[in-house]
Amino acid sequence: MAVSIRPFEASDWSLLWPLLHAVFAVGDTYTFPPDASEDEIFALWIKLPQATFVACDESGAIVGSYYIKPNQPGHGSHVCNCGYLVAKAARGQGIASLMCEHSQATALALGFLAMQFNFVVSTNRSAVRLWQKHGFNIVGTLPKAFRHPQAGLVDAHVMYKWLAGGSDAP
Amino acid sequence: MAVSIRPFEASDWSLLWPLLHAVFAVGDTYTFPPDASEDEIFALWIKLPQATFVACDESGAIVGSYYIKPNQPGHGSHVCNCGYLVAKAARGQGIASLMCEHSQATALALGFLAMQFNFVVSTNRSAVRLWQKHGFNIVGTLPKAFRHPQAGLVDAHVMYKWLAGGSDAP
Repeated sequence: MAVSIRPFEASDWSLLWPLLHAVFAVGDTYTFPPDASEDEIFALWIKLPQATFVACDESGAIVGSYYIKPNQPGHGSHVCNCGYLVAKAARGQGIASLMCEHSQATALALGFLAMQFNFVVSTNRSAVRLWQKHGFNIVGTLPKAFRHPQAGLVDAHVMYKWLAGGSDAP
Repeated sequence: MAVSIRPFEASDWSLLWPLLHAVFAVGDTYTFPPDASEDEIFALWIKLPQATFVACDESGAIVGSYYIKPNQPGHGSHVCNCGYLVAKAARGQGIASLMCEHSQATALALGFLAMQFNFVVSTNRSAVRLWQKHGFNIVGTLPKAFRHPQAGLVDAHVMYKWLAGGSDAP
């Protein structure tokens, strides 16, 4: 599948929001409330982040999306946070990898020095492996911090990657 | 000093906000922007949290404050987050310890199972030691995640304590 990634446009929302809703409703990867309203999801994915992108297939259909924002304000704002989504029907085709690479380039272009994932559910092993493949390290584990709908209380990981080179690198 | 801790009341704000502003303005412990407006500080400390408390001395003067809120929504909302402040003139008298103990009891009363500090600046050694003394573990370290106004880029710790007993304990 030839996938292109471009900035979100307002007209994308009617197609993007059902994809987001479907992932949140399953509730096994994100802490976002499974019964979140369209307005709440819009705030989380579009309004609050600094930028949002969509991944489209050859026909222009949205198959994924990610947002980027500072993970902390003020003196922590050089570290960004991203959230990613791949449409269920489009999984296993490397779209998350493409978005992860794209988001790292975006982060550097926006002046961020590092990227942090605050809450990678430990049972989401494909995500953990994927981020590790892209250079993210598990820098912390939060014991039983996620209430998995099937597995009960499970750990969540904090993952982190320094993006910038030069004298700032740890 | 005999200190009592009680819920924040609207009439406390005019006395509390200068204390918060003073700590944020120094900018060596919190990521909150040093130039944050009163409205922004009100949102952070009062409006967004689930509850806010103040610590008062014998005369009723506010010498400290803390807030408590879920650290994540949805399936992560059983872990709370707190932020603490001690007025500069009242430091070294155990007020942070009192608030830490009070906040753990509050957390259990509100139904939380664990408490997480997302961003304890590593150079704030007295805070790291204090939380450790109260049973918090460093579960993660974020390399160079804080831009210290004097020390430059320094690490920040994620600290975590399971509060609840019983079969849920990790």
